Amino acid sequence: MPNLHLYDKLLQFPLFQGMSRDDLGEIVAHTRLGFHKLKAGEDIAREGDDADYLHFLVSGRIKIITSAADRSFTFFEYRDSPETFQMEALFGPSYRFSHTYQAASECSLITISKEDVRRFYNSFLVFRINFINLITARLQKADDNMWRTTPADTRHRIISFFRSHCLYMSGEKDIDIKMTRLADELNEGQRHISQSLNDMNEEGLIRLSRARIHIPALEKLLM
Amino acid sequence: MPNLHLYDKLLQFPLFQGMSRDDLGEIVAHTRLGFHKLKAGEDIAREGDDADYLHFLVSGRIKIITSAADRSFTFFEYRDSPETFQMEALFGPSYRFSHTYQAASECSLITISKEDVRRFYNSFLVFRINFINLITARLQKADDNMWRTTPADTRHRIISFFRSHCLYMSGEKDIDIKMTRLADELNEGQRHISQSLNDMNEEGLIRLSRARIHIPALEKLLM
Repeated sequence: MPNLHLYDKLLQFPLFQGMSRDDLGEIVAHTRLGFHKLKAGEDIAREGDDADYLHFLVSGRIKIITSAADRSFTFFEYRDSPETFQMEALFGPSYRFSHTYQAASECSLITISKEDVRRFYNSFLVFRINFINLITARLQKADDNMWRTTPADTRHRIISFFRSHCLYMSGEKDIDIKMTRLADELNEGQRHISQSLNDMNEEGLIRLSRARIHIPALEKLLM
Repeated sequence: MPNLHLYDKLLQFPLFQGMSRDDLGEIVAHTRLGFHKLKAGEDIAREGDDADYLHFLVSGRIKIITSAADRSFTFFEYRDSPETFQMEALFGPSYRFSHTYQAASECSLITISKEDVRRFYNSFLVFRINFINLITARLQKADDNMWRTTPADTRHRIISFFRSHCLYMSGEKDIDIKMTRLADELNEGQRHISQSLNDMNEEGLIRLSRARIHIPALEKLLM
């Protein structure tokens, strides 16, 4: 009975979708699963940490924090369960997290070691097809983004800056950035930037506060 | 004897590296390999074509052509053998080429069908580790690029525009773009753009002609 419950938990995640009960049974029986409860504000993994585990967010909400290479601005994204993060750090040349993951509410997570995930990848056909499809989908999206042209007006340049730094094209976001920095990023006069941000603020699309931009729902900005 | 020669050809490509002679023997024995000779200027695959085959450039030089989503500018990159292209189009949601590949000299290529490549992926441990490592390396690089900040001066903004639209960070490139379009992309006055391009032209880093920028070696610009 507890195992059946665990099957259903794993089947929520795209990586396991389509796997047979037999295969899931083998995974549950022969894998050391870590079960974790975190309180809001606690770190799950920090940027630069070795990605020794794959994390499965079973319940709760997380915050994903990413800073520019020179630390001059920071994006905060929020995601609800079910969510898996940074599968690509289990392979490839860099084995480190490139984002910080934090519990934004009480969270429960299952962790599976990198070695076990690589074993699933090698042993289970459906798992490895899921894995490659998820990774290639992200790569194809990144490539598409590269070939978008820069919009002509300031408002759409700002929105394009938001879009190009978000991992997920919907939901709530916070951005810590000074208006002067945003103006430099977009090579635009600060007066234009300020005017456009204030317009969006009045329309309820964003909420401005000191050196922070809150986006209640990115999808509304992208419409 | 011809098979031995073929093994060596395949072993040039990172996808097959580390595979045993036995596994390569099985691949060569049970796979329908296509052998193609192309003359300079002939298309190998066009953007939008179904990616039904994986192409292995065994000898010669190819041109990779990519246009912005709105067709307002086009990048041309050049690569010598050995080269494999658009592995990621064999999986994931989009099964189409997102670039046009053209023979830039006399070329010889081996093609393997998508079905066969997926069979190798599923049957050969080393092959599927190579595959996932190559794809994740590209994804990690794309993610890193996203978090670079915009340089302060016009010259470096232009170089950053070149870099962010190239698949390969070295070698010869051509870019078809009007100066007005480049100015719009960078939100910069045309006089600054023109001045910076002319400086780089005089330094031999680029060669300007009407609506075309030739880069003899991107790595020199990135230094």
